[in-house]
Amino acid sequence: MSNAPASGLSINTATVKEQLGFREVAEACARLGITAFAPWRDQIAAVGLDEAARIVRGTGLRVTGIIRGGLFPAVDKSGRDAAIEENKRAVDEAAALGADCLVLIAGGLPKGSRDISAARGMVADGIAAVLPYARACKVPLALEPLHPMFAADRACVTTLGEALDICDMLAPGDGKALGVAIDTYHVWWDPLLAHSIARAGRGERILAHHICDWLVPTRDILLDRGMMGDGVVDFRGFRRMIEAAGYHGPQEVEIFSTDWWKRPGEEVLRVCIERYDVHCRA
Amino acid sequence: MSNAPASGLSINTATVKEQLGFREVAEACARLGITAFAPWRDQIAAVGLDEAARIVRGTGLRVTGIIRGGLFPAVDKSGRDAAIEENKRAVDEAAALGADCLVLIAGGLPKGSRDISAARGMVADGIAAVLPYARACKVPLALEPLHPMFAADRACVTTLGEALDICDMLAPGDGKALGVAIDTYHVWWDPLLAHSIARAGRGERILAHHICDWLVPTRDILLDRGMMGDGVVDFRGFRRMIEAAGYHGPQEVEIFSTDWWKRPGEEVLRVCIERYDVHCRA
Repeated sequence: MSNAPASGLSINTATVKEQLGFREVAEACARLGITAFAPWRDQIAAVGLDEAARIVRGTGLRVTGIIRGGLFPAVDKSGRDAAIEENKRAVDEAAALGADCLVLIAGGLPKGSRDISAARGMVADGIAAVLPYARACKVPLALEPLHPMFAADRACVTTLGEALDICDMLAPGDGKALGVAIDTYHVWWDPLLAHSIARAGRGERILAHHICDWLVPTRDILLDRGMMGDGVVDFRGFRRMIEAAGYHGPQEVEIFSTDWWKRPGEEVLRVCIERYDVHCRA
Repeated sequence: MSNAPASGLSINTATVKEQLGFREVAEACARLGITAFAPWRDQIAAVGLDEAARIVRGTGLRVTGIIRGGLFPAVDKSGRDAAIEENKRAVDEAAALGADCLVLIAGGLPKGSRDISAARGMVADGIAAVLPYARACKVPLALEPLHPMFAADRACVTTLGEALDICDMLAPGDGKALGVAIDTYHVWWDPLLAHSIARAGRGERILAHHICDWLVPTRDILLDRGMMGDGVVDFRGFRRMIEAAGYHGPQEVEIFSTDWWKRPGEEVLRVCIERYDVHCRA
């Protein structure tokens, strides 16, 4: 990897989703020397898949992931079947854009449920149902554990260890088919983090590495995530663990923040480059 | 335990801290048939320790815990030493009130730090320093893991497994000296929960069992905790695990909620009894 400030950096479109559409963020990345990005499906849908693919080819950007599939638990079988079909469409989009992976989040408890074990079972069943299609399309699935504060409503799979258990169960020995996306924001607190990252490396399961800081105080559960350097995450130490586990791919900035969404998109991207360069290289 | 609605119930004074002082909450509990409570140190200080002890004797309440000690990490040695001394004073209060245990929370990262491992080391060192004094005073220390969303600013020890590791390291084979407080709100999401509760039972480390629900949505990280039955926690299933692990002591309601703090204190206590009786018995 070169020493250019943005070398090894990827931009998740959520970071500037209120400011820039699919084409705008892709073109801004290319202009600023950022060579990779990761679009959300709603932004792909807004321009249409064919046009999105043309933009990707035109800018030459690497697509480090499509966000997002998953969300498997549902009250009844028709809901769970619909989620599986929706995930196959997401696989199609990842294939069309030549993405490194499709990022999955588990989904929360079905409405009215207090049974997190049952929800976890639905996640495993859902991934198992999508996996053959994803394999046929050569799209790796990257299960992303979310912070436990989202366990009820977004992701009942909250730790890297649990995500890896699911990978080992459904795709033993095959990290190219099913692996994990590791986001600093979601897992930085985990006492088993070093152990789990090393385990992910041994299984060649690290398919994506997202970066985002944890702010003190955090004023909103969903939309107060931090730019690298503004919070308590030790990005350099984190990256060293990731690289020691054998992953040397891009670091993808994904920040949900009403504060950063208020600033001009290209300014935010410039800050991402600067903070990445200062705080995040191993 | 009898079948009276409040049998086995304890009230943590935080639940009605905006409405009732130490004497008021103790007398209200006694009046309503609640036979145990757990006061916070600021409420003890407000009436004075001697008077607090008189009130406890007068009402005949069991004291299921004193809240709270811990908060060990600090920027420098003098700060860490001060925390240790403060914990000894908390031990004195627990002894004076005949409390079942002194509840400890770890504390967060020292100001300016991004080193959660170092903070965890300070927690272990702090507990090790307090433990001989607590043993001499016959006050069990109960380390309470808090939800990972508090890892940065309140408790770098976030899982039951990590808390038990500390117990096993500092007081091997001695659950009467050092154990854990298990609060549904903080640990309900943990994929290793059943495993860790069973482990805590084998070590006879379960010193307190707190109950509080997780609301969907949760609108505030600190002050939007739920009354049992209003959220996603499976209290009966949780209690079955706790009892299978050999703990049959009280369930202590600890709810930080601006909503419940707006209601008359005695009304809140009545709701606690009702919800406990309906939702929380194994």
